[in-house]
Amino acid sequence: MNYRPLPEDILFLQQQVLQLGDSLRALPAFAEVDDDLSSQLLGEAGRFVGEVIAPLNREGDETGARWNDGEVTMPPGFREAYQAFVAAGWPALSAAPEDGGQGLPAALDAVLFEWLSGANQGFTMAPGLLHGAYECIRHHGSEALRARYLEAIASGRWLATMCLTEAHAGSDLGLVRTRAVPQADGSQRVTGEKIFISGGEHDLTENIVHLVLARQPDAPPGPKGLSLVLVPKWLPDGTRNTLRCERIEEKMGLHASPTCVMRFDEATGWLVGEPGRGLAAMFVMMNSARLHVALQGIGLLDAAWQKADAYARERRQMRAPVRPASRGENDAADLIVEHPAVRRVLDTQRAWVDGARLLAYRTALQLDVARHASDEAQRQKAERWCSFVTPVLKSACTHQAFHGASECLQVFGGHGYVREWGIEQVVRDSRVTMIYEGTNEIQAIDLLVRKVLPDAGAGFAACLLELRDELDASRENEADAQRRMAQLRYLGTSVALAAQADPKLPYEVADDYLRVAMLTLMGWAWARIERAAPADDARWATPAAAFRRWLLPEFDMRLGLVKRACEAASAPR
Amino acid sequence: MNYRPLPEDILFLQQQVLQLGDSLRALPAFAEVDDDLSSQLLGEAGRFVGEVIAPLNREGDETGARWNDGEVTMPPGFREAYQAFVAAGWPALSAAPEDGGQGLPAALDAVLFEWLSGANQGFTMAPGLLHGAYECIRHHGSEALRARYLEAIASGRWLATMCLTEAHAGSDLGLVRTRAVPQADGSQRVTGEKIFISGGEHDLTENIVHLVLARQPDAPPGPKGLSLVLVPKWLPDGTRNTLRCERIEEKMGLHASPTCVMRFDEATGWLVGEPGRGLAAMFVMMNSARLHVALQGIGLLDAAWQKADAYARERRQMRAPVRPASRGENDAADLIVEHPAVRRVLDTQRAWVDGARLLAYRTALQLDVARHASDEAQRQKAERWCSFVTPVLKSACTHQAFHGASECLQVFGGHGYVREWGIEQVVRDSRVTMIYEGTNEIQAIDLLVRKVLPDAGAGFAACLLELRDELDASRENEADAQRRMAQLRYLGTSVALAAQADPKLPYEVADDYLRVAMLTLMGWAWARIERAAPADDARWATPAAAFRRWLLPEFDMRLGLVKRACEAASAPR
Repeated sequence: MNYRPLPEDILFLQQQVLQLGDSLRALPAFAEVDDDLSSQLLGEAGRFVGEVIAPLNREGDETGARWNDGEVTMPPGFREAYQAFVAAGWPALSAAPEDGGQGLPAALDAVLFEWLSGANQGFTMAPGLLHGAYECIRHHGSEALRARYLEAIASGRWLATMCLTEAHAGSDLGLVRTRAVPQADGSQRVTGEKIFISGGEHDLTENIVHLVLARQPDAPPGPKGLSLVLVPKWLPDGTRNTLRCERIEEKMGLHASPTCVMRFDEATGWLVGEPGRGLAAMFVMMNSARLHVALQGIGLLDAAWQKADAYARERRQMRAPVRPASRGENDAADLIVEHPAVRRVLDTQRAWVDGARLLAYRTALQLDVARHASDEAQRQKAERWCSFVTPVLKSACTHQAFHGASECLQVFGGHGYVREWGIEQVVRDSRVTMIYEGTNEIQAIDLLVRKVLPDAGAGFAACLLELRDELDASRENEADAQRRMAQLRYLGTSVALAAQADPKLPYEVADDYLRVAMLTLMGWAWARIERAAPADDARWATPAAAFRRWLLPEFDMRLGLVKRACEAASAPR
Repeated sequence: MNYRPLPEDILFLQQQVLQLGDSLRALPAFAEVDDDLSSQLLGEAGRFVGEVIAPLNREGDETGARWNDGEVTMPPGFREAYQAFVAAGWPALSAAPEDGGQGLPAALDAVLFEWLSGANQGFTMAPGLLHGAYECIRHHGSEALRARYLEAIASGRWLATMCLTEAHAGSDLGLVRTRAVPQADGSQRVTGEKIFISGGEHDLTENIVHLVLARQPDAPPGPKGLSLVLVPKWLPDGTRNTLRCERIEEKMGLHASPTCVMRFDEATGWLVGEPGRGLAAMFVMMNSARLHVALQGIGLLDAAWQKADAYARERRQMRAPVRPASRGENDAADLIVEHPAVRRVLDTQRAWVDGARLLAYRTALQLDVARHASDEAQRQKAERWCSFVTPVLKSACTHQAFHGASECLQVFGGHGYVREWGIEQVVRDSRVTMIYEGTNEIQAIDLLVRKVLPDAGAGFAACLLELRDELDASRENEADAQRRMAQLRYLGTSVALAAQADPKLPYEVADDYLRVAMLTLMGWAWARIERAAPADDARWATPAAAFRRWLLPEFDMRLGLVKRACEAASAPR
């Protein structure tokens, strides 16, 4: 079965729970974006994704992108689907109207990309980097670069890549060796080899715009010596630039997305931003790019859930322990959805998808606020939220995409291990989301070591206090969620103290800390959902109960683990 | 890199920790199997697996088994390697001398198959079912069948399959529809379609012996109507039997092992055991087969660990938080093995492999005792151990193979997602072990619902008391391990009581109960290893510490989850 976007689920979360309309109305840029417009837009997006993109998923995996002598052919149907995607204006959804975009909020764009990932992650990789490149050029490109490239990228007419990784420089970009030599005409000559370049070559668009991290001669070693250079496949004068896709990788999954080795031989390019400020120019879009990866995780997990749920409602094996209403007189076995172990898998994945969605949409809204609020303090508060919550979501949602998809595969028994049902593709495709855009371990270190510890947890505590104030302590679930927030705030202080005695400690427990943070945030999300949902509506009450019963116990385990590590570090030796 | 069997690790666990030699000497069948013979045998097995089988792993995945018009060609090199495997007598290691076997203990055969799986799981599937078929025919076959098939199978000259699953009958074999019609000459005519038949067709051996679960006319519906029929590819008179491999499945992994759809059209066969007693005939080898799958999990996890450990010792990225001794003056980055998050992954997987090995070898030894002890009470005690511990190991070791291999993949960053390093193959290959030979959910239900609850936990408690008595309460770690055993014993009683109020409950918490059991058993294993290992030997002290610090916290979480579920079930409504 193909993935089916379900706008009604999203509209409930965005409009009933988050009251997105009110928040958007408060931003001048989105004064016109009311609930009706959002509903209409998501309706159209859902149809497009479901009818045009989802049906290509299997073929994309089986045929894959094909390399031949430097050229890459995308899987059957991808080129036409991409053209329809551009023609309908979907790439330009959140780009600014002055750049040819539609100026719509990130909170709506988020849903489009979540659905695209659920429907066809291989396809989604192509336009997936477009927004990052757009933001990067918009904020740091010269006027000439902006004039030449911004509209083409915002509209999706040309696609873009981020050329960062080299064979010896992955998580550690400071080791990058690609050279950029300034020329008298103000251009750069770029030479070096980049690996893991998603969409480095393809037949979807006429031109491809590479943003290449490189080092100028005499630049200092390490990250501060890096510059960002825009290197197009085709130069403005119509000549082919001296760059080439040397090969594409054989991967575990995501076969529809060509992962390219790109060779630059004195290729012509132009600086984006100041020399030596290449990482800063890229980091303008880091929160937004990481949130997109979190949304990929949510989409993929939802796709796995849809497959497992459908299978569990038609497959009969063995008797359920208690006679279910679905057992007919002639049924020798019950639907497997009636078996408690299957029920638990489905309900817990549903709890992850829905809770994570609420958090991701709130974060997308904060991106909108950070970009568009007229009040500086409000913008800063929104940026603080994004800074702390984005690594949590990137890590937790992609972790769950892979592990939850694997649990959904298990629902199929042996049928899950064969290609036919498509569930094993979700497991393979989702695995890479735990790695790219900063590995999940790096997200955890980013959160704890780079963000929480420097002010001994005060900044993150301020985010949590915002959330606390949205809850009603007279309701038991909400009071519990508040208590967990207090425990998380205190934990930041504990780790900061213990780290003075043992500087390794925060690196050892960063993953656990991030899980505590995610479960705390999920507690807020489910408290909000439960308050907004009609009482006893099983659509929301069932995953809410699953969250409390099956997922929350991890909170105490991780909290205890970190606390004991802190105590051990602080104890006299 | 190819998998490397390391006999010294195994010999330490079997000889220093388990004192395997003493136990074997007490069994008349193994009076001659001393430590020297074991060491020599494992040395040879390690060389064979490392030199002949491991190098074929990558090619097996890439080329895979190929189907053409009913015939299956195995990947390059597999036929020659299998012939060498047979010629060296490895298939016959634990078969009885009177059947042409070598009469060696299961405890040594276990190591061979663990290594084979680590080296090349696709290859290992071929001889993997041979022992089960051998035991089945040996115990239940007629004298004529034994004379005709036993030696050929014991020696590996002919391979065997288990034909159980049908499209609509997976976990629920009671739904099997394949028909076996008795003939006047005492043979059966078998008609039906079986799926997921590993090695149903191949070019490794001249003949293939299928053990087919089928239903005779007028047999009752459900599992009690099933008979087991031996159906050879080639009949004794040299004619080709009317059976055919219709196709092989496209799978997530294990490409070297053909997973066949087998069509039987009035194929000729002979009953193994009594009509209607087909499941009983198969279950003679269930514990042994499940232990073999647990060993596959251990081998695969060890293979993943070896790859990640080697990579982490040569890859440099970023500075470690504390300056490591491995940092040279000119190193711009540290070995990633010095990064705490990587260290934690490696140490915890090592803790799983070593602890699980000790448990698996102890269980293999109990299989030997159950088969060969002269004392009936001793045999029964050994059978009790196998009955309780085998499902725990099958589930926990295969779960960890997949999840731990995925953690090891993460050590490689983006390089883990591409084929080149071989780690993603381990993730794909290992996934199926959580499904076949009874899904892990079924193992959990088997343990809790079928075995622990019927006597309110008394039988399992007796196993745990055996273990308790091997520990020394004056040592802190061992006393802790004893305390967890007491908690697990009490938990069985709690669930038995709560199940009276809520019959669904045990099915809901079976997985958690099994995890509590595994962590309890692992606590015993690590207490025993630590006592036997030289003090401060990092080879054993490091994973021992990782077990306590990173893995044991799950014990309290799962225990608490089950206890709360019991309390909720027992509370007045």
